[in-house]
Amino acid sequence: MARRKAAVIGGGVIGGGWAARFQLMGWDVAVFDPDPEAERKIGEVLDNARRALPGLFDVALPSPGRLVMAGSVAEAVEGADWVQESVPERLELKHKVLAEVQAHTPPGTPVGSSTSGFRPSALQEGAPRPGDIFVAHPFNPVYLLPLVELVGGAATQDALLEHAADILRALGMYPLRIRAEIDAHVADRLLEAVWREALWLVKDGVATTTEIDEAIRMGFGLRWAQMGLFETYRVAGGEAGMRHFIGQFGPALKWPWTRLMDVPELTEELVERIARQSDEQSGHRSIRALERARDENLVGILRALKARDWGAGAVLAEADRHLGPPPVDITRPIETQRRVVPLDWTDYNGHMNEARYLQAFSDATDRLMEIIGCDAAYIAAGGSYFTAETHIRHLDEIRAGEPFRVETRVLHGAGKKMHLFHEMRHGEDGRLLATGEHFLLHVSLETRRASPPAPHVEARLAEIAAAHAELPEPDGVSRAIRRPG
Amino acid sequence: MARRKAAVIGGGVIGGGWAARFQLMGWDVAVFDPDPEAERKIGEVLDNARRALPGLFDVALPSPGRLVMAGSVAEAVEGADWVQESVPERLELKHKVLAEVQAHTPPGTPVGSSTSGFRPSALQEGAPRPGDIFVAHPFNPVYLLPLVELVGGAATQDALLEHAADILRALGMYPLRIRAEIDAHVADRLLEAVWREALWLVKDGVATTTEIDEAIRMGFGLRWAQMGLFETYRVAGGEAGMRHFIGQFGPALKWPWTRLMDVPELTEELVERIARQSDEQSGHRSIRALERARDENLVGILRALKARDWGAGAVLAEADRHLGPPPVDITRPIETQRRVVPLDWTDYNGHMNEARYLQAFSDATDRLMEIIGCDAAYIAAGGSYFTAETHIRHLDEIRAGEPFRVETRVLHGAGKKMHLFHEMRHGEDGRLLATGEHFLLHVSLETRRASPPAPHVEARLAEIAAAHAELPEPDGVSRAIRRPG
Repeated sequence: MARRKAAVIGGGVIGGGWAARFQLMGWDVAVFDPDPEAERKIGEVLDNARRALPGLFDVALPSPGRLVMAGSVAEAVEGADWVQESVPERLELKHKVLAEVQAHTPPGTPVGSSTSGFRPSALQEGAPRPGDIFVAHPFNPVYLLPLVELVGGAATQDALLEHAADILRALGMYPLRIRAEIDAHVADRLLEAVWREALWLVKDGVATTTEIDEAIRMGFGLRWAQMGLFETYRVAGGEAGMRHFIGQFGPALKWPWTRLMDVPELTEELVERIARQSDEQSGHRSIRALERARDENLVGILRALKARDWGAGAVLAEADRHLGPPPVDITRPIETQRRVVPLDWTDYNGHMNEARYLQAFSDATDRLMEIIGCDAAYIAAGGSYFTAETHIRHLDEIRAGEPFRVETRVLHGAGKKMHLFHEMRHGEDGRLLATGEHFLLHVSLETRRASPPAPHVEARLAEIAAAHAELPEPDGVSRAIRRPG
Repeated sequence: MARRKAAVIGGGVIGGGWAARFQLMGWDVAVFDPDPEAERKIGEVLDNARRALPGLFDVALPSPGRLVMAGSVAEAVEGADWVQESVPERLELKHKVLAEVQAHTPPGTPVGSSTSGFRPSALQEGAPRPGDIFVAHPFNPVYLLPLVELVGGAATQDALLEHAADILRALGMYPLRIRAEIDAHVADRLLEAVWREALWLVKDGVATTTEIDEAIRMGFGLRWAQMGLFETYRVAGGEAGMRHFIGQFGPALKWPWTRLMDVPELTEELVERIARQSDEQSGHRSIRALERARDENLVGILRALKARDWGAGAVLAEADRHLGPPPVDITRPIETQRRVVPLDWTDYNGHMNEARYLQAFSDATDRLMEIIGCDAAYIAAGGSYFTAETHIRHLDEIRAGEPFRVETRVLHGAGKKMHLFHEMRHGEDGRLLATGEHFLLHVSLETRRASPPAPHVEARLAEIAAAHAELPEPDGVSRAIRRPG
């Protein structure tokens, strides 16, 4: 299949994030931004994205597309399957850019706007083909956060938004269709409410920027990474549920718990106070260091949610299923893993932690089990394999962001017994990083004791074992750690 | 040391959470609540807490204290080192309870109130000893979220708040000292702002409760689990920093991006709409199931942040250091791990995932390295041990929440070589769960090649190896996986 092409107009933090997301998910990308610094800035976003994004997925991504800086809007949008506008929030500028985009693209080309505030109908005003323009509002960092608010205007066809949503899902994102047009859509209205209240707290000297940030990330921020406002409150209401909760909490709406009826004036003094407090809070780290810390944290949080198939993590798990595992060829060692080392798999030695080698081998074993028919449905029905013995040789190092693959041989597979040998190789130069040898027993999950597998599982395993018996013996089988000296 | 005692007055979700936190961190707890259902409700909170809290820590917690239901406030507070009031938000009720508490406690007993809204000076009005009363406002679930807003009133001595903060830190919590008294303190003002805006969005039919929740947890909720509002915006501002960000985002304050100037009326119709949407969103799961999903997610998020020593995770890491590792006795296998299986260490088979066995052994190796002087400072100076070979025998299962310990023998330790043998045993019945045998080499982190350790490290390792040479040979050393058949 020919690569698809995205045109990104405006190369700031948001445009750069879009460019990185498209490129790393396999699209060619052309960026136009008149700022002479744009290429350098986008390069920095891409560096961050390359480090963080691929490790969100437990399968191989398509190889990255080609990214070019275009000399004009016309050049950028030529042949584009998606145009994303991320220029500054000035309506007349957006109108000018959108008109230029549509002067050089055929009808039906999706044109998304990253606008935080403008309604799609406002963007569509005076456009050559208003129906092709919609809001696709992402969140920084665009290469990690799944949310995209997708809003159509009066002229937008529903089919175009469906098409756009499919594309966003294939990028590993979460398109949230907003049905009504309002200024600032949904998420930024909530953010704006917090921002106003926080400005009052700083202005009134109640709390510093540090104190407000701790009040968020030590408490409700943790909750909101996995359930939103309403589900959280539903749970807090306990058995009596949402009605009870509103009954309890509702009266507070009448109390003077907020300064929000009023808007603080952004005086020079208030700006100065915030900037100074922010310097005290975060000034000891560069923006670059903060970005990297943020990305490491987000990858860890997203992967923790993915392990539970929940919220933003469920979006990633679905993307894995969409990308699919490598094809199966049983006449050679079977490729059971092809992926990169996620940011959260490294340790104080700066390389993949030893326990993550076993995690990769364990995932490879799971994939082999799936191939022989011991899949989720089979396990739910009460059969599985338990590992009884493991032997790992650590032969070389690998670091976060680097690709690797695991190739698996069935050394023996008959009755309850399965003997596997995994070779982990670097994805670029093929060098052997580790071997994992495993002896497993089929068990009944009810009795927790060894039991024969279902006939179709046993047969498929035996078939692979027979095919692999033809292969030369790998180095390192049945090795033991000897007592030195 | 005698156990300390906490009195918890009011046994709802918040009081129950406090009771669980105190008990599981080693305090005796007496709860008073006139509700005949209180004991059952607290039991349910405790069940959840027992499942989730201990696994936040990578070291052993003190054994849980005794929890009793008291027949009166007087009985509950007798001999208490801390009284926590969590009764409904009615000022006259709180005054009555606080007066009764102080009638039965000696001067200087810290009396914290869980109030979400009242200022401490309002609580102190008319109290026998106003100076002992302060706000200690926690966040649900109290046994997982670290935040406690700590606010003193006009009569509060600073020394008492310092003492209270020390106690909260020892409970693994994060006391945030709020310097100014305002209604609803800090975090709930931010929450109230979001709540009001969200009610408008539902009332105006812009978004459903599901859509609002997804707008939060797919986007800024993920950010706020690790950085707050200001640090996030500082980073978003890029190299130009906070001033630039405010310059860009500031004007939006003047735009009609919020309905917050107004307060929605909680009509029966609006309440009904929210309750119905919430049922559609979450009604397919019981509150119990939602609580458990929430707790699993929070444990995963908190542990992800802990691995990066960041935010709420840094609070947990500090608590681990405060609790400290087990003592060292080199005349027998050294206890290098004593902990429970965290909620996020289990897999689809319902038990500790095989890769986590190696994580536990890897942590045990790290502890042994620390004992021989290969600690964080030594590693920062460029020396470390890399694992070259690992052999694990999985002998028995263990499930989330169950305790285990690891005992480590040095089979060989001379020159660059270290040969370790770990035995993992169940913490209750001592049965052997697994053995881990590891061959490691000392390396230079600069050259990434084998190198001799520092003399003090080599000497200490040799000393332990000599002591352990006196012990009987453990079962399973130098075993290999044999090819069956």
